[in-house]
Amino acid sequence: MDRIASLKQAAFKNGESDGFLIFNQANLIYFTGFSGATALLIPKEGTPTLYVYNVNYEQAKAEGKTFVVALVRRSGDLLECIAEQVKALKIKNLALDAASIESWLALAKKVRGTTRLKVQGSIVSALRKVKDAQEIELMRKAAELTSEGMRVAYETLAPGMKEYEVAAEIEYTMRKKGSYGTAFETIVASGLYSAFPHGGCSDREICKGDLVVVDIGATYKHYHSDMTRTLVVGKPTDKQKKLYDIVKKAQDKSLEAVKLNVKARAVDAAARKIIAEAGYGESFVHNLGHGVGLEVHEPPVLGPYSKEVLAEGNVFTVEPGIYLAGYGGIRIEDTVLLCKDGVQKLTNGPYLLSKE
Amino acid sequence: MDRIASLKQAAFKNGESDGFLIFNQANLIYFTGFSGATALLIPKEGTPTLYVYNVNYEQAKAEGKTFVVALVRRSGDLLECIAEQVKALKIKNLALDAASIESWLALAKKVRGTTRLKVQGSIVSALRKVKDAQEIELMRKAAELTSEGMRVAYETLAPGMKEYEVAAEIEYTMRKKGSYGTAFETIVASGLYSAFPHGGCSDREICKGDLVVVDIGATYKHYHSDMTRTLVVGKPTDKQKKLYDIVKKAQDKSLEAVKLNVKARAVDAAARKIIAEAGYGESFVHNLGHGVGLEVHEPPVLGPYSKEVLAEGNVFTVEPGIYLAGYGGIRIEDTVLLCKDGVQKLTNGPYLLSKE
Repeated sequence: MDRIASLKQAAFKNGESDGFLIFNQANLIYFTGFSGATALLIPKEGTPTLYVYNVNYEQAKAEGKTFVVALVRRSGDLLECIAEQVKALKIKNLALDAASIESWLALAKKVRGTTRLKVQGSIVSALRKVKDAQEIELMRKAAELTSEGMRVAYETLAPGMKEYEVAAEIEYTMRKKGSYGTAFETIVASGLYSAFPHGGCSDREICKGDLVVVDIGATYKHYHSDMTRTLVVGKPTDKQKKLYDIVKKAQDKSLEAVKLNVKARAVDAAARKIIAEAGYGESFVHNLGHGVGLEVHEPPVLGPYSKEVLAEGNVFTVEPGIYLAGYGGIRIEDTVLLCKDGVQKLTNGPYLLSKE
Repeated sequence: MDRIASLKQAAFKNGESDGFLIFNQANLIYFTGFSGATALLIPKEGTPTLYVYNVNYEQAKAEGKTFVVALVRRSGDLLECIAEQVKALKIKNLALDAASIESWLALAKKVRGTTRLKVQGSIVSALRKVKDAQEIELMRKAAELTSEGMRVAYETLAPGMKEYEVAAEIEYTMRKKGSYGTAFETIVASGLYSAFPHGGCSDREICKGDLVVVDIGATYKHYHSDMTRTLVVGKPTDKQKKLYDIVKKAQDKSLEAVKLNVKARAVDAAARKIIAEAGYGESFVHNLGHGVGLEVHEPPVLGPYSKEVLAEGNVFTVEPGIYLAGYGGIRIEDTVLLCKDGVQKLTNGPYLLSKE
């Protein structure tokens, strides 16, 4: 209930709102620990109401002891149930974390004349950006499982294997050790495909000398992790080594720049400067990093246009890359935690371009 | 391009709209075959524009030959790019498949005075509900991989195994045979957990005599499948056998009711009648089924409140269940295709309550 107290503090203190409605799935898990809810209404005073369809009702009652659990009989009823409760509680200004245009219009119609709606998802994002001790423990576990998966990638990769066969071995290891499935579609992108940052897996056979980008993530109790290594199966060429060293240096320099109260865009700039000075500025085609938690992409963003300042408890990726269409790509990524006394890598594994 | 022609036919024929903007990720894949796009603008006349961030730009150009590919430099630019193009093309009435309230308001502001917006996601849903030959081929493959996973579930399940260890074996087999990852979080729910329809996997050790619900899905080239079997590890009790037979009969009867031009709710009713007559009506806590395709839950819904009529090319699940809190649950599910000459099961596997 601490998280709900924090939301109330942030959302209601200035009197602008007297109720908060949560629709976003990750936010629902954040506040309830339960993945089967459809909505959560948090009034300024009194017990929050969790809205649940029949299919998850018994489970919600078993798990959701600190909420009123309201049964939603069918899809058309959900907004009606919420509107009735909003009116019963005399909520005048209802903040929402998110809504589709259709839900927004339908709910606004139902509470017209009694309640004003506004979107304030950023209040929840701000809370979720700062991980508490319980979250950090789960993220450490997710990162540990991910690092195990990467160890297996290095062990397994061999010429003649198909990309998806390598993914199978990685995912199997993570799962057997306790991962709840992958945080995102595993990327094993070899040869020319490695130049596509979101290349996924194909049935391409990996050839000797290929660059292979392996980007993986385990999940543990709803928390994610994200890690990339790039390797060559065989002896790397001088060009491959040169590119790898640039990307590795960019990661090192940006990690040195991570400190409390530093601007996220300054950390991005530290990596971007190294890559640009080496002549590959145009080939670093994405942000340096993104927050990780209940979602695999969440605030804070670490990019050239970020407006965020890094704070204790932030968990995010640091993942510079160089992508050369028609040649191949290299990315190195870790998920890190910003602590009071500096940055800690949550994912761990050697930085080896070659297996040999 | 046939799918875009069909959309144009459905959306523009009556002159109500002269442009269609696609934001939904599954819809983007449906129309472009590409998973790295952020939006697609389809004008009444001329070539559609695919909006892509830098990170996916090279890949989009390589794959998206029938579109203009527009580079979006950063998140704030997306709606600006779209608004400019909408105005340049003199689109007066722009239909959208979906939008968050924030995107809607921001876009409406940018095109105020020139273009009216309206949400018409149902036009795209109606197209997607009827699978074409190419889609059916991919769904057959996804279902085949899923059926392989279920075979392994029966082989693997044994007292003393943890739920997630069973999931690991299932997922590994599906992946090695070519699945692109799971369609949803694998459910292996044993003992009392089997009474929670969305129970997921835990680290619970499976005991002799437990009911175990195994609900799995493979993915093949963005298309999903969905299949459930329930089994007892050991010798089933009379009550377990009785419940199983009711659920199986409910599936059989509802499959018999699946015909061209039948109401979806009549098919649901055929299953619900069997379960209610056996005295478990209150314990069948979900709809009979849902459409499957690019999303694992999509139209048509087969439930008591469905308004849809089944048509050739629909692919959906048929999955009756009985859930008794404090006892356990049973569900049997297949993904099926409605053809001109009747219903075909895409997932295939024996209906065995016991391994022994």
